[in-house]
Amino acid sequence: MTGDAAVMGPMVTVACLELAPEVGELARNAAMASRAIGTAARSGAQVIVLPELVTSGYCFESNDEARSVSISQDDPLFDQWSAEAGGAVVVAGFAERGDDERLYNSAVLIDTSGARTVYRKTHLWDTEQLFFTAGSAAAPVVPTAFGRIGVMVCYDMEFPEMTRSVALRGADLLVVPTNWPWAQRPAGMPAGEIVIAMAAAMANRMPIACCDRRGTERGQRWHQATTIIGGDGWPLATAGPDGVAVAEVDLAATRHKHLSSRNDALGDRRPDIYSRDEVSTTRPDG
Amino acid sequence: MTGDAAVMGPMVTVACLELAPEVGELARNAAMASRAIGTAARSGAQVIVLPELVTSGYCFESNDEARSVSISQDDPLFDQWSAEAGGAVVVAGFAERGDDERLYNSAVLIDTSGARTVYRKTHLWDTEQLFFTAGSAAAPVVPTAFGRIGVMVCYDMEFPEMTRSVALRGADLLVVPTNWPWAQRPAGMPAGEIVIAMAAAMANRMPIACCDRRGTERGQRWHQATTIIGGDGWPLATAGPDGVAVAEVDLAATRHKHLSSRNDALGDRRPDIYSRDEVSTTRPDG
Repeated sequence: MTGDAAVMGPMVTVACLELAPEVGELARNAAMASRAIGTAARSGAQVIVLPELVTSGYCFESNDEARSVSISQDDPLFDQWSAEAGGAVVVAGFAERGDDERLYNSAVLIDTSGARTVYRKTHLWDTEQLFFTAGSAAAPVVPTAFGRIGVMVCYDMEFPEMTRSVALRGADLLVVPTNWPWAQRPAGMPAGEIVIAMAAAMANRMPIACCDRRGTERGQRWHQATTIIGGDGWPLATAGPDGVAVAEVDLAATRHKHLSSRNDALGDRRPDIYSRDEVSTTRPDG
Repeated sequence: MTGDAAVMGPMVTVACLELAPEVGELARNAAMASRAIGTAARSGAQVIVLPELVTSGYCFESNDEARSVSISQDDPLFDQWSAEAGGAVVVAGFAERGDDERLYNSAVLIDTSGARTVYRKTHLWDTEQLFFTAGSAAAPVVPTAFGRIGVMVCYDMEFPEMTRSVALRGADLLVVPTNWPWAQRPAGMPAGEIVIAMAAAMANRMPIACCDRRGTERGQRWHQATTIIGGDGWPLATAGPDGVAVAEVDLAATRHKHLSSRNDALGDRRPDIYSRDEVSTTRPDG
């Protein structure tokens, strides 16, 4: 695991904004996010990450409720966020109403040109399956003014195929809007999702910024485990009392994947050995 | 991450023996391992894991030295270990001299029939590349009296393709002989390799027993981070002052991969989306 001497490169200021959306309150949530984006951008953030479904809330009681807070990819809100962001890149989760009238649990990447890319979550957690259709496209890697940014949503990240995929496609930074339901864990341990994120960062030498949410919603609590993880896999920052986590992330240092003078995190892969299993849909018979 | 109610099943007693081999001292190391296997078996261990290269030591100074402590797959030592083990299964690392006269960093799985399976490490760490040839076969999943046991060696485990592969092929338990060179880590954090093992256990709902080594060798220290991890990803046991970690592992509980009433750790995979990337050898151009 020992890294060699760091190659210093462009430092990018990443901010995660652990907001507390209210379910069903689209206008309120959108305005709260706009204000938070503006504040973070004026404080110097260059990449700003917001929670999953920040516009809609999470714990829907009906399809009608979910639909009532869904917006399309060309909603003017994203231009408003772009204006608030100045030159910063924003990634945020939202409930998307597609042209096909289906709902998707999506994340939008916004820059000065407005909504650049929308990704539809491909691995849906639990009751999300009642309200959302799973996406069918791979997680994007978007070239931006602040590096190539990979985007996925919450449970997606728990699949190592997903994190590996964006690393293989050259992501300098992975950003992950999340809503992590609270769960028991042993004393002294990070949330399980953070363990998974740290391991993914280590295995791919790729910084990962996870933006969780706060605010109890219909009895549901959250880990509130927002963490920005460096390319060596160790946490750089967690959210303070104000819900904001900020870190300077060295994107260039992890463009090389050296782990030792003879080892490379991606180059040492042996697709000749495991490719057959990886594409398999075989499941244990137990 | 929240698991549902546990399905209780056959408990298997797993013991990791964090021994301190001496480089170049084959007879001494083999005898030390024999004694430790016998002691563990008489204490009730059913699956016994020893370190990587426990017969040979690790920090070789020359090819001749490595060759001098290499043994073949049919070495009588493995029958001796089988006898010491009674009915237990033993997995241990050794320096293998192949029929092709090449050296491999291998692990042997032994049961009452003697050496059942030999796996040759496919991802070689740093100076291992000076002495060993990388294996060309996938990590095995071996049906034993105590469940289906996956076997890989040290750095192999840092590739999520490897851990996923044995889980997809039905491993109830993954055992990993290791030699983890000491490396700095933030206060309060487990060794990076343990973070990776915990994440792999979580992502695959698969218990993992990692057996590290102890004893400074030619100035090289080790994490001494031997840990048995449950199928939920949390540590069950670490090595005590005697170097032994013992845990009762519920192998049946993780034969189902349910994460929620609607989620399944393996069934939720989307090979339709990521198979193309997974088999790719593409690397970032940065």
